[in-house]
Amino acid sequence: MSHRVVVIGGGFGGIHAVQRLRRAPVEITLIDRRNFHLFQPLSYQVATGALSPGEVAYPLRAIFKSAPNVHVMLADVTGFDLEPRQVRLANVPGMDAAPPSVEYDTLIVAAGSSYSYFGHEDWRQYAAEVKTLESATAVRAQILRAFEAAELMTDPETRAAEMTFVVVGAGPTGVEMSGQIAELARDTLRHDFRAIDPRTARVILVDALDRVLSAFPTSLSRRAHRSLEDLGVTILLDHTVVDVNQYSVTLSAKHGGTERIHTRTVIWAAGVTASGLGRQLSELSGAELDRADRLTVEPDLTLPGHPEVIALGDMVRVRAGGGDPVTYPGVAPVAIQQGRYAAGLVGDRLAGRGTKPFHYVDKGNIATIGRGRAVAQVKFLKLSGLPAWLVWLCVHLWYLIGFQNRLLVCIKWSVSFFTHGRSARIITYQPTPEAVQHSDKGAGDEARASGVRGG
Amino acid sequence: MSHRVVVIGGGFGGIHAVQRLRRAPVEITLIDRRNFHLFQPLSYQVATGALSPGEVAYPLRAIFKSAPNVHVMLADVTGFDLEPRQVRLANVPGMDAAPPSVEYDTLIVAAGSSYSYFGHEDWRQYAAEVKTLESATAVRAQILRAFEAAELMTDPETRAAEMTFVVVGAGPTGVEMSGQIAELARDTLRHDFRAIDPRTARVILVDALDRVLSAFPTSLSRRAHRSLEDLGVTILLDHTVVDVNQYSVTLSAKHGGTERIHTRTVIWAAGVTASGLGRQLSELSGAELDRADRLTVEPDLTLPGHPEVIALGDMVRVRAGGGDPVTYPGVAPVAIQQGRYAAGLVGDRLAGRGTKPFHYVDKGNIATIGRGRAVAQVKFLKLSGLPAWLVWLCVHLWYLIGFQNRLLVCIKWSVSFFTHGRSARIITYQPTPEAVQHSDKGAGDEARASGVRGG
Repeated sequence: MSHRVVVIGGGFGGIHAVQRLRRAPVEITLIDRRNFHLFQPLSYQVATGALSPGEVAYPLRAIFKSAPNVHVMLADVTGFDLEPRQVRLANVPGMDAAPPSVEYDTLIVAAGSSYSYFGHEDWRQYAAEVKTLESATAVRAQILRAFEAAELMTDPETRAAEMTFVVVGAGPTGVEMSGQIAELARDTLRHDFRAIDPRTARVILVDALDRVLSAFPTSLSRRAHRSLEDLGVTILLDHTVVDVNQYSVTLSAKHGGTERIHTRTVIWAAGVTASGLGRQLSELSGAELDRADRLTVEPDLTLPGHPEVIALGDMVRVRAGGGDPVTYPGVAPVAIQQGRYAAGLVGDRLAGRGTKPFHYVDKGNIATIGRGRAVAQVKFLKLSGLPAWLVWLCVHLWYLIGFQNRLLVCIKWSVSFFTHGRSARIITYQPTPEAVQHSDKGAGDEARASGVRGG
Repeated sequence: MSHRVVVIGGGFGGIHAVQRLRRAPVEITLIDRRNFHLFQPLSYQVATGALSPGEVAYPLRAIFKSAPNVHVMLADVTGFDLEPRQVRLANVPGMDAAPPSVEYDTLIVAAGSSYSYFGHEDWRQYAAEVKTLESATAVRAQILRAFEAAELMTDPETRAAEMTFVVVGAGPTGVEMSGQIAELARDTLRHDFRAIDPRTARVILVDALDRVLSAFPTSLSRRAHRSLEDLGVTILLDHTVVDVNQYSVTLSAKHGGTERIHTRTVIWAAGVTASGLGRQLSELSGAELDRADRLTVEPDLTLPGHPEVIALGDMVRVRAGGGDPVTYPGVAPVAIQQGRYAAGLVGDRLAGRGTKPFHYVDKGNIATIGRGRAVAQVKFLKLSGLPAWLVWLCVHLWYLIGFQNRLLVCIKWSVSFFTHGRSARIITYQPTPEAVQHSDKGAGDEARASGVRGG
């Protein structure tokens, strides 16, 4: 019987591990609670109506249709038995097939992370995020519905609250979301309403640190800051969120004082917590967790004491030679490189070869702000404005899986660029909050919706 | 103050009435409970993963952005006061703006129809339809999830039930749906699974009449029948549905005997009932209703006794010279021609001119079956196979609103035609049944998802 590899999570880490293993003499089972790979760095574009869900998601079965040794399984992973080596499964919502437990010889866990609310789980219902396709679609409906509600209102205060959008977290996702909402209001929707002027919408970007894009060089943070202000975004730095409810967000300034902003739309892009599967592996193996529940793995990404279990992506931090474990940024290239490394490790073992520890090749950092506006750092090169945006465009199109998607997205972006239109501006009725919340967790949340770094 | 026209429903009838009125000296308010126009003849393509929701829906505000006298209002119409002339409104779900009542000088009601379940409302939860975007997306998830469930199952009987799809109603929508599901199973998904062979899926098309596409000439029905059988569809004619539940459909044959089919997926494409707004107008004016709740209007589409109220589309039947009222087919061209007629009537009145009664110009009939397969009747010309399919393609692309959509759909279809792919094959978690059901009713359901006829 050939070596059985079970991969949990169809995000960037999982699919790249499977891609590289497909020609190896192994039987692969890829388990995810969604039937699609989400190109998460673009999910914010779904949240602002620039792209349709189908353009950033690709069926896992379609990706691996020509690999007969790859089995895709739509199921929810509930736990592990490390001895005997088994993955326990449950149904995904809406399906009543009872999936059997799955045995493995090697287990690759790439279950990603989800947004944390700093211990305030009750904020989740008022502050949506854009990490999953369902939540991105819900955010789209919420933003568009706010303008629709404002159009119907006559009271100036409630109208102003509807037209106020607060984005929490000025990392790549927060910068992208606030820039996109500003463009939507000032550009796309400009002529769409009669009672309100969408250009008077307020977009407020809040961060606890003292600059936007803190992972970037200071000079690029400054440029991004200026670009956002040009688009009409109000940036509140050194402010932390102390309360979120249905009608407002309350901020506390670092230098004293609190401020209450009346708003009906809060987008959450601050702080992630690793998949709960990391905690389970920690309890079973004694491996450490950090404050964000990231599992500490060995330099070769294996679980301490369990070389047959590999964990990767933004649910882990990696033990280095002698110092502290390394927390890599939660972006797609890290997951991709780790997924490929994991596949290589499996291949090396089967061939009886040794494997060097994982080494991350950082090819750069890129974040987009709006039409023709971005900042990028590639090695020592710093770019901003249109050149950075063109780099961003090429990198993202290159990594979009599937010929058709790439072509369609390219055409859509070209048309949008020249017409300022956003065609995916439809409001459909939404899943219940329970369903959305449920779908925020578990496998498949690999690689958060932030800047793709090089490669 | 200029003449106030209120239009209810952003379907084909409503938007064509507004299009033609936009240059008239009138103030127009277009009310819909969705923020988009749905190109309903293609909603079945969403239900089978060939197109994304954003490709068959276009924001109403975007359509009328350059018409300053057109106000779009996202609201639910709850009723009318014919004296004083007012439309009563309520919120759409998820929005808490209280929309005011709206006054009109002329009212155009184009609120469409929804599927009826022959008095068995309880069947709705088990037999989904593809008339609204939300239900089409839900059907897509249901079909794909059935294959996923079958892949996980080991019991041959439950697996066979998951892989059995029953389509009720062999009109254009039923024919299109069953053809598409067969293609999905035999072609698109062929290599996607490991435990099951999707080509063994059973697709069963049921109708109470003795032929498919009964609105078409008999020879074309025969061709469509053969094409469907070539695709592997089992056709059960002269069969009526007597029960639908979570696990099966029970049929009664015209010539005696009942048959129970074990299935988890039933698609409903039989029998529509007019919008409840028709019943309200009937109660207020004394106008007759037919068995499908269609409102009987005068030869000029006005409500008896209320020339200032016009009703059109598949929620009405039209009184003719002396004989019985005429029930036009519930297709887009009827709604479009009636919408334009209504706009002309308003213009004529304002100019003090008389208007001839409404006259429908029937340009033909077309239904698609699968890739390169269709049947069409244009005047005395009967087409089938690839020529009919090309006519179908041209007609539908021509009528798709918005340059970008038309281009994207065209590219997508071309790619699909050559690659046999369907890219929009994603399962997202679904709204609650209540939400779907709620969204089935009310304004905006104009022009059912059947063959577009010529003009």
